[in-house]
Amino acid sequence: MKMLINVPETVVADALRGMAAAHPHLTVDVENRVIVRRDAPVEGKVALVSGGGSGHEPLHGGFVGPGMLSAACPGEVFTSPVPDQMARAAAAVDSGQGVLFVVKNYTGDVLNFRMAEELAEDEGIQVASVLVDDDIAVTDSLFTAGRRGTGATLFVEKIAGAAADEGAPLERVESIARQVNESSRSFGVALAPCTTPAKGSPTFDLPPGELELGIGIHGEPGRERRAMMTSREIADFAVDALVTDLRPDNPVLVLVNGMGATPLLELYGFNAEVQRALGERGVVVAHTLVGNYVTSLDMAGCSVTLCRIDEELLRLWEAPVETPGLRWGR
Amino acid sequence: MKMLINVPETVVADALRGMAAAHPHLTVDVENRVIVRRDAPVEGKVALVSGGGSGHEPLHGGFVGPGMLSAACPGEVFTSPVPDQMARAAAAVDSGQGVLFVVKNYTGDVLNFRMAEELAEDEGIQVASVLVDDDIAVTDSLFTAGRRGTGATLFVEKIAGAAADEGAPLERVESIARQVNESSRSFGVALAPCTTPAKGSPTFDLPPGELELGIGIHGEPGRERRAMMTSREIADFAVDALVTDLRPDNPVLVLVNGMGATPLLELYGFNAEVQRALGERGVVVAHTLVGNYVTSLDMAGCSVTLCRIDEELLRLWEAPVETPGLRWGR
Repeated sequence: MKMLINVPETVVADALRGMAAAHPHLTVDVENRVIVRRDAPVEGKVALVSGGGSGHEPLHGGFVGPGMLSAACPGEVFTSPVPDQMARAAAAVDSGQGVLFVVKNYTGDVLNFRMAEELAEDEGIQVASVLVDDDIAVTDSLFTAGRRGTGATLFVEKIAGAAADEGAPLERVESIARQVNESSRSFGVALAPCTTPAKGSPTFDLPPGELELGIGIHGEPGRERRAMMTSREIADFAVDALVTDLRPDNPVLVLVNGMGATPLLELYGFNAEVQRALGERGVVVAHTLVGNYVTSLDMAGCSVTLCRIDEELLRLWEAPVETPGLRWGR
Repeated sequence: MKMLINVPETVVADALRGMAAAHPHLTVDVENRVIVRRDAPVEGKVALVSGGGSGHEPLHGGFVGPGMLSAACPGEVFTSPVPDQMARAAAAVDSGQGVLFVVKNYTGDVLNFRMAEELAEDEGIQVASVLVDDDIAVTDSLFTAGRRGTGATLFVEKIAGAAADEGAPLERVESIARQVNESSRSFGVALAPCTTPAKGSPTFDLPPGELELGIGIHGEPGRERRAMMTSREIADFAVDALVTDLRPDNPVLVLVNGMGATPLLELYGFNAEVQRALGERGVVVAHTLVGNYVTSLDMAGCSVTLCRIDEELLRLWEAPVETPGLRWGR
C-alpha cells in the first residue's frame, strides 16, 4: 500500500511539524506531542483537553482553538497518548479554573486519561472528565467496554468548548459535555478498509461487493456484513438505527462524516438521503455538517451522528469557533 | 469499485440536494445546476462565477459565499458545465457591475465559458474572463491546449473574490485574477487512481510500487512514472520543479492539496517536507493551507501550489471569507 510518508516511525512527528507550519495560531510541541492554543492559558476560563490515537484527523489537533479545545494530545496511529502528554497539556492550559478531559471510550484512552487526572491533580489542577460513547453499532467491541466514542466527540468538544469560552465554571462545562454525549448517537459504515502505516496492508478484509454496517473508526467489526447497498438504503439503515435508539423529540444537529477516502461529492449525495430519511421519520434538523471530521485514515465509508439539542445547546453550537478543522464567526 | 451513491446518473443532482440541505446560505438550483450566494446580486459589487466538472469538491460549489465566488456551475463528473448554466449563473449574480468568469484551462470549459460570455453579453451583462493554467507538469495534455488549471484556481477565486467584495471595478478584479494566475504554479502526484461513477473502475492503471509525477486532476498523464518515493523525495521533486519555473522573489502562499483519498495525517507530514524544501531554496512562506481543496474523487496523492504575492495580494488573501470550503474572519 503506497503512502505519502517517509517511514512509519515518524508519521506522527512529521504531521505535527506540518501542522506547526500551517497553523501559527497553535503552539505545537513536537517532541512532547502536545498541541496548544497559542493564547493559553486563557485567564478566567475553564480549559478543554482531548486526545487519542492519530489517524482521525482533523480530530483532535484540528479542533484546538478559540471556542473549542485548549489542547490536544495525539498518540501514535490508533494508539492512546500517554498520561504524561495529557498532564503536560493540562498544565499548559490551566488558568486556575480547571480542566475538562474529553475522552473517547477506548480502554487505553480511558486508563491513560484517568492516570493523567491523578498526575494533574497532584500538581494542584482541578480536573473533570467526560467519556464519549455515542456509537450504537455494538457494545463491548475490540478496544472498548461499552459503546465506542466516535462522531459525537466533535459535538462535545464544540459545545462544551463554547461554554468554557463564555466563562462557565468547570462543573457546568462538564455537565454540558455530559448532556451532549448523552444526547448523541452515531452509526458508521465501511466500504473499504484502512491501512495503518505500521502494518502497511489493510487492517481488515472487506470482499468486493460487500460493506460493513456499524464499523468502528479503527476498523473494529460492526454489526454485520451485507451485499453492497445504495446510498438511500444505507441512509435508511443508519437513520433507523439512530432514531430508534435516540428517539429525538427536539431538533437535532446532524454530522454526515466521511471516513477519509470517500469523495465529498458522495458525502453530499449521502446527506441528501440522510435528510430525506430523517424527514420521513419526523425528525427536525437544526444544522448539518458534511465532511471529513472524524476519520479513519484512508477508510472509505461514512458515519452519521445525531445530537438532540435544546435552545441552550443550539446557542452554544452556533457560537464562534476558530480552529483548523471547524471555523465560523458571529 | 464500491461507491456511496444511488446510481451514477444522479450523482451530481444528489450531491446538490445534499449541499442545499447543509448550506442554507447558498441557493442551490438543483434542476439547472447553479449554486448561488443567497444574498446575490450584491449591490454595487462585481460578481465572480466559476464552474467545471464535478468530482473536485469543494471546488467550485464549496467556494461560493461572501469574499469568494458569487456562483458556481457544476458539470457532470469530469465534464464541463454547459453555456446555459454559466449564463444563468451570471444573470443571477450580476448587480450591473459585471461578472468575472474564472475558467480552468480545459478545452470544454474554455469553449463553453466563451459561449456563455456571448449569451450573457446578449443579455446586457458585462463579462470578463480569466483563464487558470498553473499546472507546470505538462503542456498540451489530455483535454488541454497549454497548461492545465488546477490548485491556483483556489487562489484566484479567493483573492479576486476579496477584491470584488471590497468594491473593485470589473477591470481591476480581472487584472488581479490574472496576476494571481500568472504568479501561481502547481505540481501534482498520484499514488493511486480515481474511479468515476460512470466508469466504475479506475480511470488509469498505476502499478503497485509506482507513482505518477505531474498527474492531472482527472487522472491525465503526468511527466513520468517512478518507483515509489518518500514524502521527502516527492516534496523535493515538486518544489524543485515549482521554484525553477516560478523563481519567486516575494513571499509565497502555499497550498498543500490532497487529491481526495490521502489522509490529512499524511498531508500534514508532507507539508513539513514541503516547508523544509522551500526553506532550503530560500523561499519565504506567508501562509500555508493544507487539506482537500481541489480533489480528484478518490484519487490518492497530492499537489503543491505556490503563489507569489505582494502586499496587496496578501491583504486580499487575508480578507474574511465565508464559504463551505474556506472560511475565516477578520
